[in-house]
Amino acid sequence: MKNRKKAVVLLSGGLDSATALAMAKAEGFDCYALSFRYGQRHMVELECASQVAKMLKTVEHRTVEIDLGAFGGSALTDTNIDVPHEAGDEDEIPITYVPARNTIFLSYALAWAEVLGCTDIFIGVNALDYSGYPDCRPEFITAYEKMANLATRAGVTGEEKLTIHAPLIDLTKAQIITTGLELGVDYGQTTSCYDPAPDGKACGTCDSCRLRLKGFKEAGTKDPRKYEM
Amino acid sequence: MKNRKKAVVLLSGGLDSATALAMAKAEGFDCYALSFRYGQRHMVELECASQVAKMLKTVEHRTVEIDLGAFGGSALTDTNIDVPHEAGDEDEIPITYVPARNTIFLSYALAWAEVLGCTDIFIGVNALDYSGYPDCRPEFITAYEKMANLATRAGVTGEEKLTIHAPLIDLTKAQIITTGLELGVDYGQTTSCYDPAPDGKACGTCDSCRLRLKGFKEAGTKDPRKYEM
Repeated sequence: MKNRKKAVVLLSGGLDSATALAMAKAEGFDCYALSFRYGQRHMVELECASQVAKMLKTVEHRTVEIDLGAFGGSALTDTNIDVPHEAGDEDEIPITYVPARNTIFLSYALAWAEVLGCTDIFIGVNALDYSGYPDCRPEFITAYEKMANLATRAGVTGEEKLTIHAPLIDLTKAQIITTGLELGVDYGQTTSCYDPAPDGKACGTCDSCRLRLKGFKEAGTKDPRKYEM
Repeated sequence: MKNRKKAVVLLSGGLDSATALAMAKAEGFDCYALSFRYGQRHMVELECASQVAKMLKTVEHRTVEIDLGAFGGSALTDTNIDVPHEAGDEDEIPITYVPARNTIFLSYALAWAEVLGCTDIFIGVNALDYSGYPDCRPEFITAYEKMANLATRAGVTGEEKLTIHAPLIDLTKAQIITTGLELGVDYGQTTSCYDPAPDGKACGTCDSCRLRLKGFKEAGTKDPRKYEM
């Protein structure tokens, strides 16, 4: 039997990372999903991550506790800042941006990958519909990969190259949804809302819900997620 | 009164980071010290970090809890792996290497720096006496800085450049000690031991103790730290 390659896949419980996981699987990787409890307001995200990990048959799913809220500075982790429910200025970085979040997430993925002896990491970032976050841009991913190759054993021994896969980076939300549906992703098990109701229903009005709903509309299909509206 | 510049300084409780903090202060920075409880076996490190932060009058000292032990793979965080007490093969990366540790530490520093509105981060890595860790090399620091500038608001707005300072990178252990002594560092309040006794005394025989003792000898002065020997 052929020795299959392992990949660490960052899994948030959202639509994008579920699709990235399905794509990693379709490429033949045995997937190790990694989620974070990072002081985000909405625990429904982690329940979704757990469901998605089961649905897509990951080898293992770990949730690491990290305290991003300790530093504050974002509406997603700081309860003193409100989540906006209408479109913001397109030239500005939104208040939902969590400082250095993807940098920290990728660094944990890197640690786990090194222990697993795996050289592939998947992250579901997306530059087109990216909501203005600096750490979702292609040039960030490229620079991270270069750094990661110098940070690890592989970088010293020159054995194998570590690759950061960002398979959604050039896709529109509609293309992501179409790809995921083809790969059998049930998006009813994912959540994208920044400010869900206590029962887990999505608000339908935050930045992230609006991008998601627009994506389903453009893909010509209905979002199976439950909304408050 | 002139608005002084802020710097985030990674502080482990060891000799190197205490010196890096003293150097940041000497350069005129208001210092925000950052330590980690990361599943390391020896809590004496964090007590030392706290003493050093007080001694060098940091504006604030935060300790963030992170679970590097969750992934295993190092003698420093995995109780199933013994800390070696004699010199290893010089060409090999030692078993005390913690996967992606400096990458993760710097990423938290980056998050705090962004929230503080600060563009300077100090880390006490050192390439000459570096014990074989890939993430202590100059090329790693350079690549990290490049990535960090793309990861943050500053990278998008092009405002200010973020700088990762590694002031010890080309110094020998003896030069580090001499520099710190000139800046008034009391090294009796620092610890470097990978495997200290329950009362906090250093073993004197692990890689890190041996490098430290050799450094003091070459600097022509006595290490004020208490040893078991």
